[in-house]
Amino acid sequence: MMANQNIFFAHSGGVTATINATLSGVVSAYKRQANHFNRLYVGCHGILGALNEEMIDVSDWTLHDIKALAMTPGSAYGSCRFKLQDPEKQADEFARILDVFKAHQIGYFIYNGGNDSQDTTLKLSEYCKQHDYPLICVGVPKTIDNDLIGTDHTPGFGSAAKYLATSIYEAGIDLAAMHKTSTKVFILEVMGRHAGWLAAATALAPKPFGPDLILMPERPFDEQAFLTQLNQTIEEKGYCIVTASEGLLNSQGELWSANRQERDAFGHQQLGGVGSQLAHLVQENLKHKVHFAQADYLQRSARHLAAKVDVDEAYRVGSEAIRYCQHKKGGFMVGIERIANVPYRSRLKPVKLDIVANQEKQVPDHFIDASGMYVTPAAIEYLRPLIVGEAYPSYHNGLPIYRQFKATQLNKKLNDIASS
Amino acid sequence: MMANQNIFFAHSGGVTATINATLSGVVSAYKRQANHFNRLYVGCHGILGALNEEMIDVSDWTLHDIKALAMTPGSAYGSCRFKLQDPEKQADEFARILDVFKAHQIGYFIYNGGNDSQDTTLKLSEYCKQHDYPLICVGVPKTIDNDLIGTDHTPGFGSAAKYLATSIYEAGIDLAAMHKTSTKVFILEVMGRHAGWLAAATALAPKPFGPDLILMPERPFDEQAFLTQLNQTIEEKGYCIVTASEGLLNSQGELWSANRQERDAFGHQQLGGVGSQLAHLVQENLKHKVHFAQADYLQRSARHLAAKVDVDEAYRVGSEAIRYCQHKKGGFMVGIERIANVPYRSRLKPVKLDIVANQEKQVPDHFIDASGMYVTPAAIEYLRPLIVGEAYPSYHNGLPIYRQFKATQLNKKLNDIASS
Repeated sequence: MMANQNIFFAHSGGVTATINATLSGVVSAYKRQANHFNRLYVGCHGILGALNEEMIDVSDWTLHDIKALAMTPGSAYGSCRFKLQDPEKQADEFARILDVFKAHQIGYFIYNGGNDSQDTTLKLSEYCKQHDYPLICVGVPKTIDNDLIGTDHTPGFGSAAKYLATSIYEAGIDLAAMHKTSTKVFILEVMGRHAGWLAAATALAPKPFGPDLILMPERPFDEQAFLTQLNQTIEEKGYCIVTASEGLLNSQGELWSANRQERDAFGHQQLGGVGSQLAHLVQENLKHKVHFAQADYLQRSARHLAAKVDVDEAYRVGSEAIRYCQHKKGGFMVGIERIANVPYRSRLKPVKLDIVANQEKQVPDHFIDASGMYVTPAAIEYLRPLIVGEAYPSYHNGLPIYRQFKATQLNKKLNDIASS
Repeated sequence: MMANQNIFFAHSGGVTATINATLSGVVSAYKRQANHFNRLYVGCHGILGALNEEMIDVSDWTLHDIKALAMTPGSAYGSCRFKLQDPEKQADEFARILDVFKAHQIGYFIYNGGNDSQDTTLKLSEYCKQHDYPLICVGVPKTIDNDLIGTDHTPGFGSAAKYLATSIYEAGIDLAAMHKTSTKVFILEVMGRHAGWLAAATALAPKPFGPDLILMPERPFDEQAFLTQLNQTIEEKGYCIVTASEGLLNSQGELWSANRQERDAFGHQQLGGVGSQLAHLVQENLKHKVHFAQADYLQRSARHLAAKVDVDEAYRVGSEAIRYCQHKKGGFMVGIERIANVPYRSRLKPVKLDIVANQEKQVPDHFIDASGMYVTPAAIEYLRPLIVGEAYPSYHNGLPIYRQFKATQLNKKLNDIASS
C-alpha cells in the first residue's frame, strides 16, 4: 500500500558526536529495504526542513558516503532548536507540515532527538491521525544528556562521557604534576541542565587523577560542605579535582550560577559559568590557585574520541527505525535495553512515544553517595560499559577527515511560507 | 674523568602532553650510554627536587617503563613553577643546590622547560663555574606556547596545536549544524600569555569549520573592528567561529580581559576569561546567541590526541641532551632546526643558553594578515607539519592507559632546609 511513499528523516536539538551515525544507519537500512519505500529525504535543519519544504534526497548515497557520514560529528544537513506550537491552540505549523508531506508523498516520519523532539513526534502522529493522513511516526533517541526515559541510555551520551572522563583524567595528571608550587584545584564544567549524567561519568577516570568531587543538579549545592570537603581533599592529597554540571542548583532549587539569563526557543535557560563561579568561590574562601575548563561544544562534537559502543548503537537505532517503518510500527521510539554488563550487550525495543515525551530521567538516588558530591559503585557499574571502545576517524595532515555533505534540495511544490 | 658522576634531570614550568616523552628519550639514551655516566636521577617537582634533596633513581628502568612514560601526559615526578632567586643578590638557593649536587656527585644537569627555565639553567651553569664546580648544564626545550627563540618550534606545541585545531574543527561543525535556530557565534579561548602561536594554529582547521577570526596578543584588540568583521561573517555564512588567546591586549598594551589578577611565582598574571568576556561583548552589541569554550589544562594534557611528529621530536631532544652530556657540551639548549616542509624533516642543533634565556618569540608580522585577525599562508605553511601524525595511547575499558610512576626517593645525605 505504501511502497511508493517516501520517508522524511530529521535531526532535532543539540547535535552529538554520533547523531550522524544514526542517519548512517537509517540510510544503510533504507537501501537494504528499498523495495518497501520510495525515496528517503532528510530535512534541512530538522523540522524546519518540513516547514520550509527544504529536503535532500539521500536515497542514492553510496556505501562510501554512508561510512564517511558515520565518522563525522555534527549533523550532515543541520539540526534545530525549534519547538512547534501546540496544535490544539494554533495548528498553522502542523497544517503546513501536513501540506508538505502530502505534496511529497511522505508516508514515514523519523525524528531523531531528545525528549522535546519525541513530544513533537507524538503530536505530529496524533495530528495526522485526526486528519486521516496515514503517517508512520518513529522516534529515535539522541542526547548527550542521557535524560530520556524508556531507554537504558541514549546514543551520544557514551561518546561525550568518554571524552569528559578522558579529559578530566588527563587534566588531573597535569594538576598532580603541578600542584606542589602552583594550581591546587581544577574544575571541569560539563553540560547537563537538569541531569548530572555527564558529570557522574567523569568518575570513570581512575583516582587519584579522576574527580574527587562531582556536583550534580540532583543535589542542592551546599557551599560550605563543598569548601570543607575540598579543603580536606587538598590536605590529604595536595590537590583536588572537581566536576560540576552547568545546571547546579542552590537549596531553593534555583540555578546556583545564573550569569547568563537568555532563554532558548524551548524556554530553557542558557547556562554557563558554573566553573568560573566555583573557581571564584574557592579563591575567595580558601586562597588556593584554581584553574577551570569549560568544555562546552567540545564535549558533544569530539568525534575523534567517540566510544565505539556508542557509534555502533547510534547506527543500530537508525537501522531499527527503518524496520519499524517497514512494519508500520508508528507511535514508538526505538529504545535501548541493557542485557548484560560483562561483556556488555544490549538489544533494541519499542517504547511508546507518550511515555518518553517531555519526561526527564535524572541520576537516581542509589547512584549518588551520602555526601551528595560523588557517585556510588552502582553508578560506575552502569556507566563503565557505555564508553568502551575506540572508533577513530581517518586523519590527513594531522586532522580528522570530516566529510562536508553538499546536495541539491528537492524542487519545491508549494509556495513558501514566512518561516519563523 | 666524570664516568662516575651522576645526572640530574628535571621538568620545569607548565607540563605538556609530550614532556614525559622527553624524559623517555633521556632515560633511553642514558641506558645506551651508561658506561659514560654513573646514575640518572630525576628531581621531584622540578628544581625543588634539588633544593629539597628529593630525587628518584631511574637508571634501572625497563624498556616497558620507558615506553609507558612516553605515552603518559603530565610529568612522572612533577614539575614546578618556582623561580630561583638571583644568585648575585641572594645566593642561598644556588648554594644549597651546589651542596646537594656535591653530596650526590651530580656532574650533569639537564633542565627541561621554557624560557624562564633556560634562564635557571644558565644561572646555575655560571654559578657553578664561579665556584669551580664542574657541572655540565644542558637545556631541553618544552612549552605549548612555542615562544622560545633559537629553535624552530618547541616540543609540546605541536600536540596542543593538533588538539586545538581538531577541537575547533569539531565545534565548528557543531555550530554549522545548529546556527539556523540557535547559536551563531562560537569562541574558543586558548592559552598564550604573550604569543598567539596556539591561536594561530587553529587556522589549520579547514574552512568553513575552522576559525573565521583569530585574536592574538601580537595585535591590539579593536572591539569595533572585531564586531564589524564578526557581523559581516554571520551575514555571509550564517555563523562565526572565533579563536582568542588568553593574553589578548587592548590598545594600551594592557590585558583586555583582566578578571583574574593573581600572579604566579614567575610574576606572570594568571589569566582566563577572554572567551567569557568576548561572549558578553558580542551578546551586548549584536544580540547573537554565543557559546564559548575554555580549553585550559585540557589543551596541554590531551595525550590522547598528541601529534606523532611532536612525540618523536620531544623524545629526540631528550636523547640529544644525553649526547651533549657525554661530549661535555654544557651551556647549550637542544634546538630544533627545520630542514624541509614537504616531507617534513628536522635536525637538532645546539643553541647557546644566553640566547634563549628570558626571551620570547612572538608570532612574526608576516604570519599575521592585514586585518590583524587572521593568519597568512606563510603561517599555515609553518604550522601544518607540526601537528602531523597520530600517536595514540593504548586503551582499557574505554580510557587511555596512563602510567602512574611510583618510586622510592634516594636517601638524603644532608639536613633538610625549610623549603619555600
